[in-house]
Amino acid sequence: MIKGVLLDLSGVLYVGDTPINGALEAINRLQTSGMQLRFITNTSRKTRLQVVQELRNMGFNIAEDLVFTCVIAARDYLTSHSLRPHLLVHPNIRREFETLADQQPNAVVLGDAADDFTYASLNRAFRVLSSSPDIPLIAMGYNRYFREADGLSLDLGPFVKALEFASGKQAIITGKPDATFFHQACDAMGCRPEQTLMIGDDAISDVEGAKKAGLKACLVKTGKYQPGDENSIQPGADDLAENIQDAVERLLSQADYPASQ
Amino acid sequence: MIKGVLLDLSGVLYVGDTPINGALEAINRLQTSGMQLRFITNTSRKTRLQVVQELRNMGFNIAEDLVFTCVIAARDYLTSHSLRPHLLVHPNIRREFETLADQQPNAVVLGDAADDFTYASLNRAFRVLSSSPDIPLIAMGYNRYFREADGLSLDLGPFVKALEFASGKQAIITGKPDATFFHQACDAMGCRPEQTLMIGDDAISDVEGAKKAGLKACLVKTGKYQPGDENSIQPGADDLAENIQDAVERLLSQADYPASQ
Repeated sequence: MIKGVLLDLSGVLYVGDTPINGALEAINRLQTSGMQLRFITNTSRKTRLQVVQELRNMGFNIAEDLVFTCVIAARDYLTSHSLRPHLLVHPNIRREFETLADQQPNAVVLGDAADDFTYASLNRAFRVLSSSPDIPLIAMGYNRYFREADGLSLDLGPFVKALEFASGKQAIITGKPDATFFHQACDAMGCRPEQTLMIGDDAISDVEGAKKAGLKACLVKTGKYQPGDENSIQPGADDLAENIQDAVERLLSQADYPASQ
Repeated sequence: MIKGVLLDLSGVLYVGDTPINGALEAINRLQTSGMQLRFITNTSRKTRLQVVQELRNMGFNIAEDLVFTCVIAARDYLTSHSLRPHLLVHPNIRREFETLADQQPNAVVLGDAADDFTYASLNRAFRVLSSSPDIPLIAMGYNRYFREADGLSLDLGPFVKALEFASGKQAIITGKPDATFFHQACDAMGCRPEQTLMIGDDAISDVEGAKKAGLKACLVKTGKYQPGDENSIQPGADDLAENIQDAVERLLSQADYPASQ
């Protein structure tokens, strides 16, 4: 029986800055259903507050503490492991780590720094990493690229790969599709993974990742979904829905949802 | 019977800007021996002329056309494959590709661009790569890092890895330890690989690479050599010499050098 729901944002709730048909109503229904909820995203160019403000501008009335991002997950990881980060992150999110950053770091934290990725900044991160075998590389995602108005652009993944190769270390990923990220979000709701439904439009990052972490998962046919995506992953989705409204309707009306296929 | 010799530069002929004991004499002996010679290096921050001038400043009198670098190898590769490169290389070597670079590129060429590695420059290279599956990624090396006066610094390899990961393509490497590089150098001397001796201080890049390409190889115990390096590679070196002088002495005095171990 599902007690908590994790919702991906872009492609599930909205595309660009326009809500998907029925999404506003679906979120309202979920918020009054008694289900635990978290809105999750891999964006590491924005603070949680900036994410919430964009959602509010589109009409989604969501409390800030219901949003769980890879930035929050990275901060939680640092705190729980008593780590002092050397930061290579976007200027927007630097303040989220203000109280943790340190002149004598024992961890390197990598976000999508965009134009702050330079030879000098990558080299500084590499030198911290290579100063001791005990210093971990913590990255907020592993995506290869994303689509911008004028074309594809490099995401965080290639820069993680560069520092992994140079340092010989494997990064700890604090974002989708890493199981730790899904488990942190479940913990935040007080739900066990098997009581939690992930709803997303990315077959690999949202659905396969959630399933591997022990959650239930529903793939929606909006956003970046392409026909046949559901056949490209293992384990597969528990449900395939036309959109968020369709998924929420079935979740709230069927006692045994999702009946395993 | 050895007819041609390939010599690595740093660590074999000199360390820093000081010739290794006996190296000047050894090179003179080789130059008057009738052996074919090429001096090879993976540096992609300098033109061939800059490499030769540094050697001359140390007392090595070497003709420019005896130096074969990964930059020359990249240019040869582009020419022989009729490729028009998009360049992401060090400003020093840009002019080497002046006649080939193009506004409508059908190849991406990556050198150690140092501070010219930025998010924007890497993204431009990525966009060219992802514009067609037929556009190859050509890289002048794959080294992870090198030692500078103030610490380790990122070499070209991590940036190759980043663009490989983002584009899903595997780079063509025009430097050591790639077999193509060794074969280009052999061809330039008119020698077959089995008639050619590689002398280097890097067990993996110089010796193992040369052996895999079908050359004979001698590891010298100078430069970056560490005791035991000779046991870390497969196939192993044909000879282990104290230094370049020792290697040249044996090469020129033993008719069956190197007698396979």
